[in-house]
Amino acid sequence: MTENCVTPHRGKVLTMDTMNPNIKRVEYAVRGPIVQRAVELERELREGAKKPFSEVIKANIGDAHAMGQKPITFLRQVLALCSYPDLLNEDHFPDDAKLRARRILQACGGGSIGAYSMSQGLECVRQDVARYIERRDGGIRSDPSNIYLSTGASDAIVTMLKLLVSGEGSTRTGVMISIPQYPLYSAALAELGAVQINYYLNEEQCWSLDVSELRQALTAARKHCRPRALCIINPGNPTGQVQSKKCIEDVIRFAAEERLFLMADEVYQDNIYAEGCKFHSFKKVLFEMGPEFSNTVELASFHSTSKCYMGECGFRGGYMEVINLDPAVKAQLLKLVSVRLCPPVPGQALMDLVVNPPQEGEPSHPQFIKERTAVLSSLAERARLVEQLLNSIPGISCNPVQGAMYSFPRINIPERAIKEAQAMGQAPDMFYCLRLLEETGICLVPGSGFGQKDGTYHFRMTILPPTEKLEVLLSKLKEFHQRFTREYS
Amino acid sequence: MTENCVTPHRGKVLTMDTMNPNIKRVEYAVRGPIVQRAVELERELREGAKKPFSEVIKANIGDAHAMGQKPITFLRQVLALCSYPDLLNEDHFPDDAKLRARRILQACGGGSIGAYSMSQGLECVRQDVARYIERRDGGIRSDPSNIYLSTGASDAIVTMLKLLVSGEGSTRTGVMISIPQYPLYSAALAELGAVQINYYLNEEQCWSLDVSELRQALTAARKHCRPRALCIINPGNPTGQVQSKKCIEDVIRFAAEERLFLMADEVYQDNIYAEGCKFHSFKKVLFEMGPEFSNTVELASFHSTSKCYMGECGFRGGYMEVINLDPAVKAQLLKLVSVRLCPPVPGQALMDLVVNPPQEGEPSHPQFIKERTAVLSSLAERARLVEQLLNSIPGISCNPVQGAMYSFPRINIPERAIKEAQAMGQAPDMFYCLRLLEETGICLVPGSGFGQKDGTYHFRMTILPPTEKLEVLLSKLKEFHQRFTREYS
Repeated sequence: MTENCVTPHRGKVLTMDTMNPNIKRVEYAVRGPIVQRAVELERELREGAKKPFSEVIKANIGDAHAMGQKPITFLRQVLALCSYPDLLNEDHFPDDAKLRARRILQACGGGSIGAYSMSQGLECVRQDVARYIERRDGGIRSDPSNIYLSTGASDAIVTMLKLLVSGEGSTRTGVMISIPQYPLYSAALAELGAVQINYYLNEEQCWSLDVSELRQALTAARKHCRPRALCIINPGNPTGQVQSKKCIEDVIRFAAEERLFLMADEVYQDNIYAEGCKFHSFKKVLFEMGPEFSNTVELASFHSTSKCYMGECGFRGGYMEVINLDPAVKAQLLKLVSVRLCPPVPGQALMDLVVNPPQEGEPSHPQFIKERTAVLSSLAERARLVEQLLNSIPGISCNPVQGAMYSFPRINIPERAIKEAQAMGQAPDMFYCLRLLEETGICLVPGSGFGQKDGTYHFRMTILPPTEKLEVLLSKLKEFHQRFTREYS
Repeated sequence: MTENCVTPHRGKVLTMDTMNPNIKRVEYAVRGPIVQRAVELERELREGAKKPFSEVIKANIGDAHAMGQKPITFLRQVLALCSYPDLLNEDHFPDDAKLRARRILQACGGGSIGAYSMSQGLECVRQDVARYIERRDGGIRSDPSNIYLSTGASDAIVTMLKLLVSGEGSTRTGVMISIPQYPLYSAALAELGAVQINYYLNEEQCWSLDVSELRQALTAARKHCRPRALCIINPGNPTGQVQSKKCIEDVIRFAAEERLFLMADEVYQDNIYAEGCKFHSFKKVLFEMGPEFSNTVELASFHSTSKCYMGECGFRGGYMEVINLDPAVKAQLLKLVSVRLCPPVPGQALMDLVVNPPQEGEPSHPQFIKERTAVLSSLAERARLVEQLLNSIPGISCNPVQGAMYSFPRINIPERAIKEAQAMGQAPDMFYCLRLLEETGICLVPGSGFGQKDGTYHFRMTILPPTEKLEVLLSKLKEFHQRFTREYS
């Protein structure tokens, strides 16, 4: 009422001034301004505008199908059967696909994937996830009651962070995240009003993680917040490194000593390309360190249907496994996920197939293995190609893409270009990427969207475009970089 | 470090003491303790335990397929085609289903529903939603750029609330919600730390909404918070009323005068059963009130694939339309939804089919109409049956179920039962519903989970069980209520 009296010309209720200030602070570069510009450019091209390129190549996001990867036949057959169970009477679907579909449908209310599931996810899917984790981790027990299915991994990560965040001012929860990081983390922490504690990966050592760096960051943070969690992405996004077992042990020991809740983002667990690299799950390493650790350290680990060989991003399937979570907090977690009723059931079904694929002797096994191997070996080939070609460009240097789906090369930006960018209020690598987009149609994400050491510049580029497109992309990039460097030298 | 020194026996990092206090305050009765007990009872029955009933009847949640409703053939055919496009070459799918599937697939990156969509949702689906709204609202223009697809309606509602909430102490945002309410609202407000402003629906007048009640609630709230939004659920959940056009006009005028952002939860828009009742969308009424209102009042309205005739809850499809949203805030909204990448694409596809069903002359039209009519007329029949049978029980009185999917009858609980419940620290209607569950296997949600006037008691019961089951349920309920009343009189 008072407000009405003083504002005869009434503006909007919801404005930049009145809105949630935490949301204003959120940033998400992977779909930020550069991607919006790419979409505009695509429209301009469709409408016949003249550009120095004939198509926009989006290498900004790990979206395999959009880049031409074909879905795995078995997964889609089962999903079709679940969607329209009349097809179960058709001859041309293999028996193992039908068997899987029947099992999933039986677990659904009324035999329909249109029914809500339990909020934690269908029980049979959680059982299959637990068995998958046991196989993956050499038999270490996994309890389906510790598995929470989710709407992609992002949903589970944010849910866990929500539980962890509390306090005001100097008692606010601090969460340690790697720099460079996947910006879901910084976005969620901004939204929740938590303190982001940066620890830097060592670019010179192939983006390795040093406990001394963790300790230094933690000590500094303790002066102004209450650090409570440590997030690790392994294999790394955007940096593509694969952590060694030794490194994971060090991180776990550090978390135990410093009483930090561990969050292990392991959505790229099947995307390992480099010789000598192997995926070690945090859970397995934790249990191998003995009961002193495995009985105490609190861990949540995350997986997804969006990456690996399947790349089914659109279905928004995922799960998290929690270890050593306080039972009272588990009840709170269940209550929290109940409010959103349940994760999408088609995504749950897909998650089930990913953790329980065709077995040897089943009719779909040969084709499944053939398709999966083709995707993974082609990704490995592209990982090498990208590294090699990027390193052939003077002024660009790139660590090996050991795993995940991205390269994160360092780029030299001439001093004059940096000044021009700063004059425009742009991060120098944003300036670079925008120029690249306008001149070549290549859409990358500037390193500043992920965080990087001051004075260094990078971009993230997926390895997902098909080989022939990748070669074109990298040769255009090379030309651009040379032109850009000349222009500003 | 200090913490380590003072606690030699280190407990958990994440405990009830350290966790987010807002999450502790969240309550969600629709999947609360009573439903957890129902799930336990089902397991006990399966394991051969002797109970005074042979099956648990869940009438706690609007989950149509779980209650035996069959999916609509056309919707599922298109979803199967989208999941496994090889089926497009099969003869036995109708041409209109194939056409729809091709159109959706063409809109997806790489022609796959496994690709991420734009964060706001696939453009072609948003176009179809806009055209649907225009048809529904008699031609009032709808702009696809105002449509945001979502993970069920819940997701969009929470997103909108997130934007609206700010401030601390007496400047905290207040949001008006009806009592009784659907507990997503109270849960989201608790999580966001906003102030819940209750306004009471008038049970004596068939749960109607009085502007004088709104005004009184608002005036009281202005003393301790900043009221900024008004949420309406129409048709009502849990109360089943359908608001008149006059009432909606009054609400809009009130929102305009008092500068409140309107949130219209219209997910039951096709679930209208009572003679003389009609669904009026807030948007249509707003625009019919003239530019003074239609150019100024900020409105978000919500719809879903989960209710109406389709009942496809598991797919988590939904949309919101925003009207008069500040363009700068729209950019913030887009940024916010980008962090979660996109709503599930199968749910988006389903939303498309709901707003763009088979048209007259298309091959699937006759069967589609037949199936849809069968569902809706059976729901109408059950709405009448439930009202009638509930009102035949002495001590229970029920308003007409004009729309939506629930009855919310008032129950007399004897004074002695109230005392016994209070001694156990239970809400009296929770005590009643738990006894009902243990003795009959019927699972309802106590009125206290939705809010009700002090000293009144209710439960929410869906009208979704098949007629024959509903009759059994209601006769068991009658016996129970009489036994319970005798026992405590």
